[in-house]
Amino acid sequence: MAEERVKEFLIEGRNAVIEAFRAGKTIDKLYILDGCKDGPILTIKREASKHDTQIKYVAKERLDQLSETGKHQGVIAQAAAYEYAEVDDILQRAKEKGEPPFVFLLDNIEDPHNLGAIIRTANLAGAHGVIIPKNRAVGLTATVARTSAGALNYTPVAKVTNLAKTIEDLKEEGMWFVCADMGGTTMYDLNLTGSIGLVIGNEGEGVGRLVKEKCDLIASIPMKGDIDSLNASVAAGVLAYEIVRQRLAAK
Amino acid sequence: MAEERVKEFLIEGRNAVIEAFRAGKTIDKLYILDGCKDGPILTIKREASKHDTQIKYVAKERLDQLSETGKHQGVIAQAAAYEYAEVDDILQRAKEKGEPPFVFLLDNIEDPHNLGAIIRTANLAGAHGVIIPKNRAVGLTATVARTSAGALNYTPVAKVTNLAKTIEDLKEEGMWFVCADMGGTTMYDLNLTGSIGLVIGNEGEGVGRLVKEKCDLIASIPMKGDIDSLNASVAAGVLAYEIVRQRLAAK
Repeated sequence: MAEERVKEFLIEGRNAVIEAFRAGKTIDKLYILDGCKDGPILTIKREASKHDTQIKYVAKERLDQLSETGKHQGVIAQAAAYEYAEVDDILQRAKEKGEPPFVFLLDNIEDPHNLGAIIRTANLAGAHGVIIPKNRAVGLTATVARTSAGALNYTPVAKVTNLAKTIEDLKEEGMWFVCADMGGTTMYDLNLTGSIGLVIGNEGEGVGRLVKEKCDLIASIPMKGDIDSLNASVAAGVLAYEIVRQRLAAK
Repeated sequence: MAEERVKEFLIEGRNAVIEAFRAGKTIDKLYILDGCKDGPILTIKREASKHDTQIKYVAKERLDQLSETGKHQGVIAQAAAYEYAEVDDILQRAKEKGEPPFVFLLDNIEDPHNLGAIIRTANLAGAHGVIIPKNRAVGLTATVARTSAGALNYTPVAKVTNLAKTIEDLKEEGMWFVCADMGGTTMYDLNLTGSIGLVIGNEGEGVGRLVKEKCDLIASIPMKGDIDSLNASVAAGVLAYEIVRQRLAAK
């Protein structure tokens, strides 16, 4: 059941590592020859700092030992190959478990810690997968993997071009959608059982208009306080567990 | 109602700023004269990086303009004076609102992002305050203030020497305590109304033994997934909102 979704592999040599960064590959760890300061190495260090990649400065012996090709040129990157799933994989997963689909859709989550925490929640709440959009939103970076606490190995994440279009397609499959937003119906008063997609909005702006228009229900978390909104990953958790509660009660 | 709990003030001059860092003061922002590189300034920069403080390099004119003393020596720190509340203030707050006390107790939360998100949740769930222990746990740093999204201005946070002892004292006042842990009763099956303290454990180790022994109930969040536990701030949110749901239903 636990297909290993995260594989690690090494990228060796200056150009290969620069290429990897520029292609948007997720570099988990970077080994650089201690004291090495030429142009390409500086470029790599700049890319690393841009991507919040951990650098380890090591001796030549350590690099030789790590190297699989023997041609590391003073730099080895450890990359993670997080494979995105397809939306169909997520539905298939629900089918295999004999459960009505329960999917998280994230409308432009930007903070990797939030994305990781939400994937972790999706796993534990028994959701069959997470769908994220291709634009703007953060992807499956090393920080996301780390904050997901291993959930990324189990819970499939699909990336789609147009979230509103995906919602439309999934409605054809009999799913319906609830989005979290202020001014909706208190979540306790909604029927959240059945095949459901839970739509969580961006940290600052909430759920986008086009996506919101496609949703069947707007659910609000009751707010008694003085400030505006919960942290996005907390809001996702609170709503997901209201769905869990209703699913358990309906059994 | 919104007593301004966070006041900002300026600390000017090299020694004063170094002292402030060393005294554990929370520096929200640091203004340094652009190009300034002598010893004391390097020390300040090191402290700033240790404490994750934002540095702004500015021209002399900007410092002169900001300065209240006219003696900034190339550096001005903007410090936040987060005032800790007393446990009694929290109970008083509940009394004033005519509500049974609802308090969060955090057993050694270490990540400032989690602490900030939990204070945010406490505010919105209508809790009257948050109690944290003096040892090990993270305090009210600038990161906590930022991730609390302003909740720190409204929700009092008290710091106590011994959390187990505080629980004992509060039991005398008629409160009872539920701690979040695995292997307890599913939270939906517990009566979580009345005067309640919600105890949330450390990110890695959960609730400590001594604290757990003082709790009246152990509540578990149902877990359907493959990994161990939710993010601490998500778990706090899910449990807090089960309390909110039961309180609303009991009305």
